[in-house]
Amino acid sequence: MYPDPSSVTRVTSIGAGPIGGGWAAHFLARGYDVTAYLHNESETPAFRAILDTAWVSLTELGLAEGASRDRLRIVTDLEQALEGEQFVQESAPERLEIKQALYKRMGDILPPSVVIGSSTSGLTMTEIQTSCATPERTVIGHPFNPPYLLPLVEIVGGDDTAPEAVAWAGAFYRIAGKAPLLMKKEIPGFVATRLQEALWREALHMVANGEATPDDIDIALMNGPAPRMVSQGQCMAFHVACGAGGMATNLDQFGPALKLPWARLEAPELTTELRDRMVDGCNAIAGERHFEDMAAQRGREIVAVLNAVRQSREG
Amino acid sequence: MYPDPSSVTRVTSIGAGPIGGGWAAHFLARGYDVTAYLHNESETPAFRAILDTAWVSLTELGLAEGASRDRLRIVTDLEQALEGEQFVQESAPERLEIKQALYKRMGDILPPSVVIGSSTSGLTMTEIQTSCATPERTVIGHPFNPPYLLPLVEIVGGDDTAPEAVAWAGAFYRIAGKAPLLMKKEIPGFVATRLQEALWREALHMVANGEATPDDIDIALMNGPAPRMVSQGQCMAFHVACGAGGMATNLDQFGPALKLPWARLEAPELTTELRDRMVDGCNAIAGERHFEDMAAQRGREIVAVLNAVRQSREG
Repeated sequence: MYPDPSSVTRVTSIGAGPIGGGWAAHFLARGYDVTAYLHNESETPAFRAILDTAWVSLTELGLAEGASRDRLRIVTDLEQALEGEQFVQESAPERLEIKQALYKRMGDILPPSVVIGSSTSGLTMTEIQTSCATPERTVIGHPFNPPYLLPLVEIVGGDDTAPEAVAWAGAFYRIAGKAPLLMKKEIPGFVATRLQEALWREALHMVANGEATPDDIDIALMNGPAPRMVSQGQCMAFHVACGAGGMATNLDQFGPALKLPWARLEAPELTTELRDRMVDGCNAIAGERHFEDMAAQRGREIVAVLNAVRQSREG
Repeated sequence: MYPDPSSVTRVTSIGAGPIGGGWAAHFLARGYDVTAYLHNESETPAFRAILDTAWVSLTELGLAEGASRDRLRIVTDLEQALEGEQFVQESAPERLEIKQALYKRMGDILPPSVVIGSSTSGLTMTEIQTSCATPERTVIGHPFNPPYLLPLVEIVGGDDTAPEAVAWAGAFYRIAGKAPLLMKKEIPGFVATRLQEALWREALHMVANGEATPDDIDIALMNGPAPRMVSQGQCMAFHVACGAGGMATNLDQFGPALKLPWARLEAPELTTELRDRMVDGCNAIAGERHFEDMAAQRGREIVAVLNAVRQSREG
């Protein structure tokens, strides 16, 4: 029912803000014909400014063959904006009644084979799709700011979304140059923001208690976990740091430390089931790779990151 | 009383594990004469292997003039290890009685003008220094793993540490190529690990509840917050994302969202005092820089990071 995701050449980006503008810039840079739907003609200059800023970075990242800002069309009529389009990225204001009205109209205008992805960060698709007559193809495709730079897109459907639409979105975003994450459940904050939010709340507690200043927080993150986290997420960082024993050693040896007050967030009970999920998950990511090879790759990537940032700062 | 930190040319690194070995490698790469104290001769091959691995990365990062592995001396006698040295980095096993005994001996052997920095991640200097006759110059200098790659060193004294020794350590580590963070208080987990630990605990909760797999967690971090966090910590990321309004806009507009269940860690009450600390702190970091310039710099740095990692992976 859904088209081959690699056959998509035309997409619509809805919204004139930094997210809508960022998405439009990203799709243009990946070589798509892009229709931008703005609510009002007066939004055009600000929208173009976002695009121009993004284009500088996108050019340095490398444009797809044939990519051009000339392939952008800006319209303020929704029917015109959706005519003949093959995918829609919706970044309308974060108000439920606005989104619901929009999905009702889009649901009637667009053929049901066209998937609609929402950039919403605070609403669920189950709420958004309630008035839509064709909710099966509506999914959340939540970017990480700035959307034209950071690859992550978190994908999840609502109660009435078809699993095929979620799978299609994952395949499409990957083809479109993104790093898709197919979520298991609709949860507040998705995955990345939820993790970041736990960290942010701990940071606020530390500042409130005079344990650190905002400067301390940022020095710690930029010079500590961040360069490594570009190369390895927190799970594989612990897995590889524990050598041949991997995540099993980490949990069996340091599990008791989860009871220590090393953060204000209490850890879950380290059940056998949780232990096994972590261990099996890390082993699956590692696959056939030896931990020493992964450590060496981590080393190369951290060096590349540190050198790149230093060179960028030195101009 | 303490020497000019830029006059230091000889340092001792105590400990044969990845932390002690990593420190020895770092100081050699920065052009110091390094004495490594190992508990036992038999630890030498493993210690040298750590050094060899680290040296590959350190060479790619750029060695200081005159840096050479030939400037390493390995000894197993503590008095010999400390003879004529100007700074000591202690990375002995993480057991309080071992550290206490070691600081008692070092306190008697070393002139009181020689600062001792401990790599401990789980003990406090107040505990460690109890049996040391000259505790004023003992500080914690906690690295982030791997210590030869990640710049962060968290510095804090114990109850009997002189503030001058803490300040001296900050100046010395900076000269030695590290990013020092002078902590306000002795707290479990210091700053970076505490923030990381809040994130890790949220991750464990998500895996325990079937909301995400370890793979999901890592995809989210590596492609979402991490590349940006190399360029800006969480405070400045929010400050710059809110444009001219900065952190004030972030807290005044999104403060109520701190009540939402976006993470299992509850946020502190957003008092006027906390708000002002965050706002003033971010304004101080920004200084005279315009938010658009900081956003542009962030863009350049994220691009540099993404390109560097991609090129490193493509070999």
